[in-house]
This record gives sequence, structure tokens and C-alpha cells, in this order.
Amino acid sequence: MGLGEFALIDRYFRKCGVKRADVRLGVGDDAALLDSPAGCELVAAIDTLVAGVHFPHGSPAASIGHRALAVNLSDLAAMGARPAWALLALTVPNSHDAWLSEFAAGFSALAYAYDVALVGGDTTSGPLCVSVQILGHVPKGAGMLRSGARPGDLVFVSGTPGDAAAGLAVEQGRLDAPAAAATYLRKRFLFPSPRMALGERLRSYASACIDVSDGLLGDVGKLAHASGCGVELSYGKVPVSEALVQAVGDERARELALTGGDDYELCFTVKPEHVGKLRQDLPPQRWGYSLIGVVQDAPGAVVMSGGNVMEFSHSGYDHFGSSMG
Amino acid sequence: MGLGEFALIDRYFRKCGVKRADVRLGVGDDAALLDSPAGCELVAAIDTLVAGVHFPHGSPAASIGHRALAVNLSDLAAMGARPAWALLALTVPNSHDAWLSEFAAGFSALAYAYDVALVGGDTTSGPLCVSVQILGHVPKGAGMLRSGARPGDLVFVSGTPGDAAAGLAVEQGRLDAPAAAATYLRKRFLFPSPRMALGERLRSYASACIDVSDGLLGDVGKLAHASGCGVELSYGKVPVSEALVQAVGDERARELALTGGDDYELCFTVKPEHVGKLRQDLPPQRWGYSLIGVVQDAPGAVVMSGGNVMEFSHSGYDHFGSSMG
Repeated sequence: MGLGEFALIDRYFRKCGVKRADVRLGVGDDAALLDSPAGCELVAAIDTLVAGVHFPHGSPAASIGHRALAVNLSDLAAMGARPAWALLALTVPNSHDAWLSEFAAGFSALAYAYDVALVGGDTTSGPLCVSVQILGHVPKGAGMLRSGARPGDLVFVSGTPGDAAAGLAVEQGRLDAPAAAATYLRKRFLFPSPRMALGERLRSYASACIDVSDGLLGDVGKLAHASGCGVELSYGKVPVSEALVQAVGDERARELALTGGDDYELCFTVKPEHVGKLRQDLPPQRWGYSLIGVVQDAPGAVVMSGGNVMEFSHSGYDHFGSSMG
Repeated sequence: MGLGEFALIDRYFRKCGVKRADVRLGVGDDAALLDSPAGCELVAAIDTLVAGVHFPHGSPAASIGHRALAVNLSDLAAMGARPAWALLALTVPNSHDAWLSEFAAGFSALAYAYDVALVGGDTTSGPLCVSVQILGHVPKGAGMLRSGARPGDLVFVSGTPGDAAAGLAVEQGRLDAPAAAATYLRKRFLFPSPRMALGERLRSYASACIDVSDGLLGDVGKLAHASGCGVELSYGKVPVSEALVQAVGDERARELALTGGDDYELCFTVKPEHVGKLRQDLPPQRWGYSLIGVVQDAPGAVVMSGGNVMEFSHSGYDHFGSSMG
């Protein structure tokens, strides 16, 4: 067994993440005391990773620590918020030194990258399960919602979705790929980069935004549903990485880009009259986003190719519909 | 399997807890948008309940929902904070309608009692595990810390600790008790009452405060350690309920009061010169707290009886040291 909870928290998590001046009291008391900036709304999200559901049993501890924070950061990016503080609820079967130290290192490296302080935690013994609560800020009234899209708005996505789903398949030995492609795809699953800088900047241009975590087609459908609209995507415009095409071919690559999970990219809509300024201020080549479709009146999310509606067997990853070996 | 995550969140958790004017955006987007009051610090805590660790497998779902919120509210009570918002990360093996509906009812009833809005959630399939993140407020600089106690301060505890540990034993069939006592003790474990009203009021009197969740002796030891002091408790002054004495006798009752877990009472220290005003403004009979000891220079937490130091086999419940059948 080794360390007690008290010592464990102390050893691994007291120095996790950055020091911030707005943390009056961090890890170590019953609760944290935090100073919110004036003129801002608090932005709060919680997300859980469960072994065998969100990552394969035996995943590298550094990746689990990284992803537990990344999936939450991605939720804040989708609101256009800047992260500040995180709280961590970690349930682990045993308190192995090496595992905990790697987990903390993975979490901490990403926290440093985005100026996040770890201000609270709870560790428990049990089946591996990690919940992170993230807190950040957005100027009052400026947060991007899922519900702001209107018919005629153009639909964009950042990055190259589908990579993470292929990376997971490589990680699990279900997919062979050339070495360089395999390395790239695995990294996209194990260490995703939440789009924090893009998210904050999009506040001035986007009418709606959602993070792509459960599959692009399903997630854009949620955005459209929340906006009381539908969406039409162009199959040929869905961006795919070279590595993904190398690994699975063009057709399967686009299918994974539409239905694979764990991308943590941003899908957002922009009114036609704002697209010019968006492209000028945030050049797509530099910021890495692509036009993929348009918001329409008719509900649902459809994919068009050469004038035909394409069918997909499932429109995104549902946590209650699948499991991971 | 039944419901997908999206429908599940919608059905059970969209109406959980109260509606609050300071919630600009609640459950259903990537993150919640919240208005913090001016002049306050944000108070944040996270706590997890794992099946087989924090409650027996097969516990009533309403109790699990209640306790998941209660243990977090108790952390806020210990800071003297007023709760406002909660986020829930729920991992359940299957999405059974009856279980989820009972869980939500248990959570919601307590949320209504303390004016808490559920503003975010994440549901996953996996071994039963519930993390709640609680957010509240305290006037700037007024939060009670563990670290404020000084030698000579008097030590108090609210309620009658030990009841919950006995209630758990009754629940597990490890302890027989007269029917009325058994009912009372079980309720103390299954549906603990966090001391919110007392916590807020104590801000004007207490030098330090901690919530008693892992056993009084261990928790008062943490308070003393954080304050750079020690503490001496009087065995004869440790309050015990009639039901507990009926169930286990006087000696075992006091032992449970000192070392049993899951009480969610408050242990606090008060400078001698403030004790008169405390007793006048918050009469102990009405507010239900007892003087149990004194803060001293020498480190550690000791229990004295008739001039002798008493030995206890363990000084509190450690999540990495025990498990629940």
C-alpha cells in the first residue's frame, strides 16, 4: 500500500501545475480560495476518464494525466475561455510511486503550458478513474455557446479530425501504419493539444462553437440541435492528415474524420459577413482550420458528396454504446 | 444499455438542483457560465465516492446521490462558505432508469435544501464512482482555514461523531442495535447533514476549522499540524449520542466518536477571549456543539483520561488503508 492519502497528495500534487497570484489557498485545506477577475464570468466544466472506456487499460500514465486535463481544457476552448484553476479527483487501484509520478508529470506539463494551477484534489483507491474539474474565465457575455448558429452560417473545423481514433487503433494493435505515421497518430491520441489560443480568438468571429470529442458528425449535430437548425457538411472538404490517409486510405480517413472520437478540435460557425475578417485576422493556413459545410433550416447533420446524401453507420462515439478493450 | 449519454444527462440532470439567477448557462453546453458575486472569494472543492470504499456495494442510490453532494458541502461548511453551484461526474456500470432516478432524487433534495444549482455533468459507463465539484463563496479574506489555531485556543466539535461509523456497521449487518437506535444510526450514515448554517456563522468566532470526515482524532490532528501546533482532547468530553451508547456501550461509543469516519461534523478552535461571545450568540444547546479540548504547543493529537494519555489503534480512516465489503 505504501503512502497514505495525505502524504500522497502532498508528494505528487502540491507542486503540480503553476503558481498563480489569484490562488489565495490551494491544495491542502478543505477547499481552495480563489480570486475571480472583475468583469468576467466563471467558466466551469467537469470531465471523467475511465480505464477501458476512454483509454485502454495499461495506457501510459503520463498520457492519462495529460488527457484528463486536455479534455477539460478543450471544453473551455469551445467557450472561448481562458483556463485558470483545476481540481483533480483521482481513483487508482494502488498508489505505485512510478505510476503516480508519471501521471503527475503528464498533468503538470500541460498545466504549465496553459498557466493552470492545481488547487484541489481528492485521491481514493478503486478502479482507475480520473475526474478533472476546470475553472476559467471569459469576459462577461462573450462566451461562445452551442446555440448561436443560424441558417446560412458557415461551418469550420480546426485541425485534422480522425487522427486520434486511428492513433488509438494503432495503440491497441488493431491498425498497422508506416512508422512515422504511426508515431504521429499515436501521439494525437495519447497527447492531444486543446485549441486554447484559437478558442479565445474565435470569440470575435464565431456564432457558435463546440469541441469535437465524440466524433465530428455527432458533435456538429449537437451544435445544430442546440441552435434549432441543421447542418450540411461536404464530404470532400472534411480535412484529413497525410498520416491518416497513409494509414487507412482516403475513404476510411474521411469516415474516421467524421465519426472517430477523442480529437479535441473545435467546430465553429461563422456568419457569412464575418468570414472575410476571420480569414484575414486568423489566416486558415496558420491557424489550421477548414470550411466544411453550412448551417441550414432542416434539422439533423448530413454529409453530401456529389449531390448525394452519404450514410454513416453511427454519427459519433456514445459513451454508453461502446467500450474499449 | 438503453439511453445514450446525451438523453441520459437531459432526462435526469437538467432539472436537478435549484434554478439560480447567477447561472447564465447551466448543463448542456461544453461548460457552464457563472456570475460570481462582487467582494467574495470563490471556494472550490472536489470529492469522490467509490463503491466498496466510501459506501458498501448495493447502497441505496438516493443515499449515494445525497452523500456525494453532502461530503462536498461539508468541505464548504468548514471554510465558512455558502454553496452555489455543483458539477457532477457520474460513472455507472449501466444506465438503469430506476437507479438513476433515485440517485438524482437524493442529490436534488439536498441541493434544494442548500440552494445549489447543478451546472455541469459528465456521465460515463464504468465501475460506480461519483465525483462532485462544489463551488461557493465567502467574503474576501473571511474563509476559515485549518492553519489558524494557536496554543490555548479551545477545541469544539459539532454534533455527535461516531454515529455514522456505527450506522455503516448496522447497514452491513456487522452490528445489532435496538430498532430505533439502528434506524437513527443508519440515517446518520446514509443521509448525513452537512453543517452549513453553523459553518457560515462560525466565521466570526473560530480561529480554525476542519470538517470531520475521516475520524475526529485524525482530522483534529490535521488541523493542529496545519497550524503548527498540537491538540489535547478530553476523553470524557467527547460527545456521543444516546443511540450510539445504546448500540455499542459507552466506551466503544467514545472510541467510535474519536476514530470513526463519515461524520461530516465541524471541528473548530476558538480563542479563549471569544468563547463567551460564541456561547452567547450561538448557544451550544441550540447549535449542537461541544468543548472537547485545547490547542497546545507540543505537536500531535492526544486524548487524555484521568491524567493518562489514551492509546488508539488508528487515528482516523485512511482511504488507502482500508476498504469496504
